[in-house]
Amino acid sequence: MSSIYLSKEELQAIVDRSSFNRWLGMTVDKVLKDSVCLRITWRDELISSPERQSIHGGVIAALIDCAADYVIAAHLGHAVPTIDLHIDYHRVARPGDLMAEARITHLGSTMGVATARVTDEQGRLVASGRGLYMAAARPASTPPAPH
Amino acid sequence: MSSIYLSKEELQAIVDRSSFNRWLGMTVDKVLKDSVCLRITWRDELISSPERQSIHGGVIAALIDCAADYVIAAHLGHAVPTIDLHIDYHRVARPGDLMAEARITHLGSTMGVATARVTDEQGRLVASGRGLYMAAARPASTPPAPH
Amino acid sequence: MSSIYLSKEELQAIVDRSSFNRWLGMTVDKVLKDSVCLRITWRDELISSPERQSIHGGVIAALIDCAADYVIAAHLGHAVPTIDLHIDYHRVARPGDLMAEARITHLGSTMGVATARVTDEQGRLVASGRGLYMAAARPASTPPAPH
Amino acid sequence: MSSIYLSKEELQAIVDRSSFNRWLGMTVDKVLKDSVCLRITWRDELISSPERQSIHGGVIAALIDCAADYVIAAHLGHAVPTIDLHIDYHRVARPGDLMAEARITHLGSTMGVATARVTDEQGRLVASGRGLYMAAARPASTPPAPH
Repeated sequence: MSSIYLSKEELQAIVDRSSFNRWLGMTVDKVLKDSVCLRITWRDELISSPERQSIHGGVIAALIDCAADYVIAAHLGHAVPTIDLHIDYHRVARPGDLMAEARITHLGSTMGVATARVTDEQGRLVASGRGLYMAAARPASTPPAPH
Repeated sequence: MSSIYLSKEELQAIVDRSSFNRWLGMTVDKVLKDSVCLRITWRDELISSPERQSIHGGVIAALIDCAADYVIAAHLGHAVPTIDLHIDYHRVARPGDLMAEARITHLGSTMGVATARVTDEQGRLVASGRGLYMAAARPASTPPAPH
Repeated sequence: MSSIYLSKEELQAIVDRSSFNRWLGMTVDKVLKDSVCLRITWRDELISSPERQSIHGGVIAALIDCAADYVIAAHLGHAVPTIDLHIDYHRVARPGDLMAEARITHLGSTMGVATARVTDEQGRLVASGRGLYMAAARPASTPPAPH
Repeated sequence: MSSIYLSKEELQAIVDRSSFNRWLGMTVDKVLKDSVCLRITWRDELISSPERQSIHGGVIAALIDCAADYVIAAHLGHAVPTIDLHIDYHRVARPGDLMAEARITHLGSTMGVATARVTDEQGRLVASGRGLYMAAARPASTPPAPH
């Protein structure tokens, strides 16, 4: 498989095109040879249960979707539309940063699958998932854009 | 299957316990005999692509997860933790309200599966999905709380 | 959505092209306006647990995949390759016939999603699932063929 | 995570309890420290398309489900019921053996998730998937048995 194409700064620029990503405070932590790490920081507006102070499952789904999308984007040079998404929730996400590390499972000419693992600051696995993305060449007139 | 247990107002109170749901502006639109409808209103902060003005896939995942969760909550009287989630994205979600209608597929003593369909203001199917939820009796000491 | 295109006999001919389908004894039970029903009959070779006499989860996955595939085939006139598949197992499948009823969720120009519900002879829901299929026009040189 | 508990021979004995597994010719290829490899051999009865000689998607789903189930079984000492299953099909499986290597993603006290990758004799990735399994302690009166 071709190696990562975009730098951390270039990938952050793609992430920041989405106002929802900016609101989540999504930052590109690492762009390695074959993986991408995103990070979000816990804050009150992301919580689901006030008693448990747990981060909302929808926020975790967004983090996994973006990490899997952007590891493919880092290969192709542009974000890709999500076709479908599967998320497994393993533990309640308590206050603290969440990191998502994504890797490509298979990247074909029209579609690609990538997986992501979400861990908390103690390194515990909070959630995992995989997304299927439309990898076909982006029309020249369309600027880079996630789903 | 037992019929819906909670009123629209009671279910809205459960939805509003989550600060992320409040930020999304999630409203309980209808509580019918065997389905629950949630609604969110398009706004700039929810978009993914500035060119396409499309709502972020993570917001749609949150909407499907909540609708499926709350149709089970409406039967059990309390929100339930999400075990896993699958989302299919069918169309780009353009500016305008999104409605999610959820129904229970199977509700057992320990787990339940519910599906949800997301449509836009023109009634077009934008996304669909299903969630698996922990349905086992909530310990008396735990207040109602989503995942 | 266009109505069903193939007759029960034409669909059975597509089912029977697969030697695995023939071994499973898969029969097209009904082809209705917007759904397709397949049936398989319990026999010793399909069981998973000798104590519970339960049908193997892989057999149920094959049944759901085929039912969802063939409801799209009944619209398009040919079987379609499976891209991905999700199965929920709700109850142990005991001795007796299993019926799978499939409906199309969304059929676009390149991909389609269909769902299927598997019930036993008492009408109890045993499993449910959905598949994503490649719906793009089949090249003229390729004969009708499932995944 | 606790290491693998069962030997290759003990795991093969669990696999062989299922008549469907025996019909598939499923063999335990390797039991490593943290993974289990199963193998099936191509034969006419497993094919889907007579033109492409491709192995049926249901057979691949069964192989992934079993590999993921048995890597958990190898830790717990008994097979576990499947709760749900997700399969991604990446390439057509051509004539030749298929190998499935499974690893545990997360094993909790009541549920566990494991993933599996299916490769052909040339080492190409044919399919991947993950299953959710009921990991709660098996009642003393129940003999070891897959879903």
